[in-house]
Amino acid sequence: MTAVLDASSRWLPSRLGEVEDRLREAIDGHGDPLGEDAASTLAAGGKRLRPMLVLLCAGEKAGADSAVRAATAIELVHMATLVHDDVLDEAPLRRGHPTVAATSGRARAVATGDLLLSRAFALLADAGDGRSVQLLADAAVGLARGELAQRHDAFDLGISEQRYLDRCRLKTATLFECACLLGHDDEHLREFGAQVGLAFQLLDDVLDVTGPPERTGKARGTDLLDGTITLPLIEAAAADPGVREVDLHGLDAATAAELCDRIAATGALETVRMRALEMVAAGKRQLEGAAFEPEQRQLLALVADGVVQRYS
Amino acid sequence: MTAVLDASSRWLPSRLGEVEDRLREAIDGHGDPLGEDAASTLAAGGKRLRPMLVLLCAGEKAGADSAVRAATAIELVHMATLVHDDVLDEAPLRRGHPTVAATSGRARAVATGDLLLSRAFALLADAGDGRSVQLLADAAVGLARGELAQRHDAFDLGISEQRYLDRCRLKTATLFECACLLGHDDEHLREFGAQVGLAFQLLDDVLDVTGPPERTGKARGTDLLDGTITLPLIEAAAADPGVREVDLHGLDAATAAELCDRIAATGALETVRMRALEMVAAGKRQLEGAAFEPEQRQLLALVADGVVQRYS
Repeated sequence: MTAVLDASSRWLPSRLGEVEDRLREAIDGHGDPLGEDAASTLAAGGKRLRPMLVLLCAGEKAGADSAVRAATAIELVHMATLVHDDVLDEAPLRRGHPTVAATSGRARAVATGDLLLSRAFALLADAGDGRSVQLLADAAVGLARGELAQRHDAFDLGISEQRYLDRCRLKTATLFECACLLGHDDEHLREFGAQVGLAFQLLDDVLDVTGPPERTGKARGTDLLDGTITLPLIEAAAADPGVREVDLHGLDAATAAELCDRIAATGALETVRMRALEMVAAGKRQLEGAAFEPEQRQLLALVADGVVQRYS
Repeated sequence: MTAVLDASSRWLPSRLGEVEDRLREAIDGHGDPLGEDAASTLAAGGKRLRPMLVLLCAGEKAGADSAVRAATAIELVHMATLVHDDVLDEAPLRRGHPTVAATSGRARAVATGDLLLSRAFALLADAGDGRSVQLLADAAVGLARGELAQRHDAFDLGISEQRYLDRCRLKTATLFECACLLGHDDEHLREFGAQVGLAFQLLDDVLDVTGPPERTGKARGTDLLDGTITLPLIEAAAADPGVREVDLHGLDAATAAELCDRIAATGALETVRMRALEMVAAGKRQLEGAAFEPEQRQLLALVADGVVQRYS
């Protein structure tokens, strides 16, 4: 996203800096025994893609305080989901024994995620911004419903592409939509956010198949091992009857990596990448309809392109 | 709480019925693959003590819709904490092996808790009630901070009584305070809620020591096994040097039950019960200062008494 920052003169980096300050404040400014989960999530940084969408949709002329507040709130919600995901991924065993650390780590992570989520609402409510609270609450409901849908559909290779897309819309695109609407309440921007968010998820799913682990920070086929049915797998199963017959319950790291190669061999990854590019293009077309400064349109288009470039 | 319902003519039971309908709607009215956790938490019923506080503080003449909405929202937050607690208590092993069910159960429970919490905020935000959202968000932050404090202080017999009370205020009393304030924004009612909530927690901690399990639904000494330092334990350690030297890390079910007997033998339970009674009395005195109908005052006093009677 360096291109976006370079092209935005001074105002965007300075507001993103304020978001960082606010995030730090929300996480450790209250003398709590801070969960390491939250501290490490904050330290890990991340792209701050969602705050950037809030700030860009709001534009330079918008009230800086309310835009920064909303940008911080949405990142807190995003961080809450990351921390809660860690609860699930944490290994319950070390050398065949349950660890005290695993238990207390999980307890802390659940509470820390709840804290981040609640602080997000407190931050918006304190500003008396009812519409923003409403948008964020609806988005948070969507995220949780998406997560439940993912668990419900796990290991079921029979789910349709539409069901996959609906789940991605809830689980990922919802927060992108919300980021844009928090910046500027305009249906074109909602649809821009939705398309960019969906593309982001599709490309993330491609990356799970391609790796490399050095870059993604996780083993190839992590989704397969979790039983998460992604579009690359759905496309590959349609093209290769052998893929359809794989029992995901029986996979280990080695057979998951083999399945990744088999998915790649069907050409499914190209198909999915193409779909993601089309979504980004559709999202960018929505920007034409939004009533705001040409600079905002250009910068948002750069963000949309950046989502693709990260994965190419 | 039957006494409260009997004394309140028709309006309270009918509004509590509306809260039940709203809860059911919030939990399964959206076609989601519903986490069993939420369904069973709802079915389990519970005393609906917090919704009752909201409705009684609001009174018969308050706008029914906004009181019912707030009562539902606070119970959703309470249910979210119960569901998230289950995430932590779930046994990670079955016959020495991690179970698939343990993993998917945990995943579902985290998401279900997030869903309940987010729905609570959505419910209040949709009514455009900014002050209520603010109160609830602050309470939710307090709950999470209390949970983090509990984990931080676990197994540390050196924590002070004040630190214990501060944690109870965050972890339990916060939601009672919030319930009262959602009903009627008055500092006397906040303090009433705080005192009743603290008493509730103290008596709950006594019950962990006394059992019987048939009544509490959990083994005696569950708090001890979790490393949770409660007032009965703090009082007993002050009276009996042998208790001070116990290493909670080394307890199993049998030695935890022995420690319960030892705590009881110090007379600590009577001391704690007495403290709880004093808190209830202090809470009831606060009711004198609140500006509302005599019927509300009487019914709230009955609720406060009911908290004690449940445990006597």
